[in-house]
Amino acid sequence: MSPKVLSLLEATNVSVSTQGEDRLIRAHGQTLYEVFSLRQTGLKRIPDVVVWPGEFGISKRRNSILWLDEDNLVACIEAGIIGQDLERELNSRGYTSGHEPDSYEFSSLGGWVATRASGMKKNLYGNIEDLLVQVTMVTARGTLERPCRGPRVSSGPDFNHVILGSEGKPFNPSLLCVVLCCLSVACGRYQGTNSYKPFSNRNQLIRFFPVGNQLVLSHLFSRALLTSFISLLPAQRCQPSSIRLMDNAQFKFGQSLRPVPGYFGLLLDGLKRIYITKIKGFSVDEMCVTTLLFEGDPEDVKKNQAKIYSIALKFGGIPAGETNGMRGYMLTFVIAYIRDLALDYHILAESFETSVPWDKAILLCTNVKQRVARECKVMNVEHYLISCRVTQTYDAGCCIYFYFGYNFMGQKDPIGSYDYIEHCARDEIIACGGSISHHHGVGKLRSHWYPKQVSSVGVELYQSTKRQLDPKNVFANGNLLRSHL
Amino acid sequence: MSPKVLSLLEATNVSVSTQGEDRLIRAHGQTLYEVFSLRQTGLKRIPDVVVWPGEFGISKRRNSILWLDEDNLVACIEAGIIGQDLERELNSRGYTSGHEPDSYEFSSLGGWVATRASGMKKNLYGNIEDLLVQVTMVTARGTLERPCRGPRVSSGPDFNHVILGSEGKPFNPSLLCVVLCCLSVACGRYQGTNSYKPFSNRNQLIRFFPVGNQLVLSHLFSRALLTSFISLLPAQRCQPSSIRLMDNAQFKFGQSLRPVPGYFGLLLDGLKRIYITKIKGFSVDEMCVTTLLFEGDPEDVKKNQAKIYSIALKFGGIPAGETNGMRGYMLTFVIAYIRDLALDYHILAESFETSVPWDKAILLCTNVKQRVARECKVMNVEHYLISCRVTQTYDAGCCIYFYFGYNFMGQKDPIGSYDYIEHCARDEIIACGGSISHHHGVGKLRSHWYPKQVSSVGVELYQSTKRQLDPKNVFANGNLLRSHL
Repeated sequence: MSPKVLSLLEATNVSVSTQGEDRLIRAHGQTLYEVFSLRQTGLKRIPDVVVWPGEFGISKRRNSILWLDEDNLVACIEAGIIGQDLERELNSRGYTSGHEPDSYEFSSLGGWVATRASGMKKNLYGNIEDLLVQVTMVTARGTLERPCRGPRVSSGPDFNHVILGSEGKPFNPSLLCVVLCCLSVACGRYQGTNSYKPFSNRNQLIRFFPVGNQLVLSHLFSRALLTSFISLLPAQRCQPSSIRLMDNAQFKFGQSLRPVPGYFGLLLDGLKRIYITKIKGFSVDEMCVTTLLFEGDPEDVKKNQAKIYSIALKFGGIPAGETNGMRGYMLTFVIAYIRDLALDYHILAESFETSVPWDKAILLCTNVKQRVARECKVMNVEHYLISCRVTQTYDAGCCIYFYFGYNFMGQKDPIGSYDYIEHCARDEIIACGGSISHHHGVGKLRSHWYPKQVSSVGVELYQSTKRQLDPKNVFANGNLLRSHL
Repeated sequence: MSPKVLSLLEATNVSVSTQGEDRLIRAHGQTLYEVFSLRQTGLKRIPDVVVWPGEFGISKRRNSILWLDEDNLVACIEAGIIGQDLERELNSRGYTSGHEPDSYEFSSLGGWVATRASGMKKNLYGNIEDLLVQVTMVTARGTLERPCRGPRVSSGPDFNHVILGSEGKPFNPSLLCVVLCCLSVACGRYQGTNSYKPFSNRNQLIRFFPVGNQLVLSHLFSRALLTSFISLLPAQRCQPSSIRLMDNAQFKFGQSLRPVPGYFGLLLDGLKRIYITKIKGFSVDEMCVTTLLFEGDPEDVKKNQAKIYSIALKFGGIPAGETNGMRGYMLTFVIAYIRDLALDYHILAESFETSVPWDKAILLCTNVKQRVARECKVMNVEHYLISCRVTQTYDAGCCIYFYFGYNFMGQKDPIGSYDYIEHCARDEIIACGGSISHHHGVGKLRSHWYPKQVSSVGVELYQSTKRQLDPKNVFANGNLLRSHL
């Protein structure tokens, strides 16, 4: 960049950096392609300069909690805040947002809104659209906002749902969100001042007490399991905070990550291998597990646990204790790190997800796995792992997460092969009645499927919205539709 | 209408009627102004002809249940179906939608979507946006739809929320909705064929068993009551299907509607008047009541009732039994009929509602009542009733319903006076932090306040959406914004 342009930029009174690290970090996202390029081939393009809103020299990251309203249990938060910072800050005041996506160590509130994020504990706290009471978005045409903070309004089309899922296209970092918070005894009660607290009774009540994780073993990842256990819980309104069902491949993979690998190392704490395999007839190569996370009034949780276990026992499931449950729950956080580590061992791995009606869930899992196997053969991939997990459950269906990884030794274009296989998998997902995404969003990776998923009238409506809010295409990030006009 | 135009119309192969009754019914809506005009002054304009979609001679009302998917607990229903017909049809198959707005005897599924309706039992079944899995809207530009029936998707901005709240502006009656259904033992189990039912286990489970209504008496409609009882239930995730809190005026009004009027007629079944007023110290002119409706697994309901009563007792509330509870719940349905009957007795009455954060709820109720009293004086209104009720509760606030009625004997322009007073009341509501509407929508009556409630960027976004979907303003019903361009 010429010194002249730079000095003009600096004269505008915004924060500017030409530091190498600042530029490198902004040169890539976190997709497999980008991280692989960063490590193996180098990045093709790097920005010359990074610009932030805010005064020169004081780069405002827009990541503060502006206020916490204890009467209404809402907080006003700048969109730049990172999940773990938000939780730490709220916890120190005795609160939690309850929003816990796998990525919450790195992802931001604004990102959650932009992609329509879903947290692991959505059964208790809701998805991001349930948490979002009020949102202010600065667009190229001015500020889009709804001044009233009523908990639910009927005021024409709800433009919060245009901001949700906008994927950064008409976005600006000075977005503000008012989100629901919950009291949490997990993080210690707030020791506030003695100032007048009209709703103090409300706040003194114990609310969401993390009671612990549990694990249920089942014989087979099957339609019967969904029918007689997993899909019943939302229908019966007795879901725990989080419920996740891993298939056999993922269960075994999880066990292999333990300090002393082996399927039954920790299980021996509470259950004998012989009991599981011989007496109960579980097969090591077929069994799958459900992890449950409970929160709330301990008395309520006890009753709910009993209810869920009675359903589980009816179809032959075995409660397998808390240590294993915690392990299963933590695995999700760990897996993101594994992806980047695995690259050092010539393994390319990534996850992709979808939502699907209950009756098509098993068909979708089976077909996607078979399709991946077939396409691996086509691409001469010998060693690979494809596994899946039900991660969210609803009345009408569930979210399914796939993990796919393969050894790319001998592949000429490892990323190209990966892309081809994932593309085939998404075709298969959609052919089986699955969605383009449950909570990752469309981005660039899935923009190929976007038009058909919203109909041509939907595409035109999106384009007119984009033209209206960002007529000069300032936020030209290429998500959703490559060309917006 | 000239015979020539009529014959041209008939040649288009759509259903046409010039019958007086068909034309009269379409000449007015159900607002107070329209019903008053119909009865007292006559309608100014009546359509010459009514046209329906569908073939000539067969007027298709678009009100069928196209299919019921028992695996995923969803049904595909045409938008023209009326609430009570929908429930009757679903009940006969062992299901319920759970959506029960006060108006459900007359309102339609399409209307619920268009106005963002809220049912009395939303705590268990959700509001209309929670029930709506998939919606197809025929616009002037083509069909807007999302082919995937996944329970939740992240696929850019969610245009379902542009259809929800669209208030008939880009609407067409051939809209189709896929909505969640729930099993209900209340209506008898479906005696189907012996055909293959893969998810039959799921369906065999008892689900929503109506356990009954309950009533809790409280001393005063006060901030303390909200703080220590009503607002705690959503925060503690222990709300019954329906919870409604009536103020003293409404409680007394309800009692006066009984066959043998008197505040304590039925209360004597379980509680002595002397116990209530002397020992417990309740004042007949201050006490208020909460009606609770429970549904679900009887065992769960018992536990939940016990929990709610223990909270109620702490702040001095008294459980007052089931007969009174049922009475309070039914009052809501009755009140719509009373409005039209009251006109014969020179009483103009109507309801209006809002949503508001918890901490502003009592302020809003008090100020609106005082404002109405003040404006009645200005308009020389001597006899009037203003009362309110909390009808829906959320984590961050509640919905408040006002009933206002007055004797219009001696008023020159009864409707004009009513409009003036309601207009003042809405100004007051918004000044107190209330919304333009919780679930009635904007329509024409509240279009005055719409622009400020969505910001000027919101108005422009609405206009661009309208231009995109209905460029020739075919659906020119004047809701939300009088002029759309």
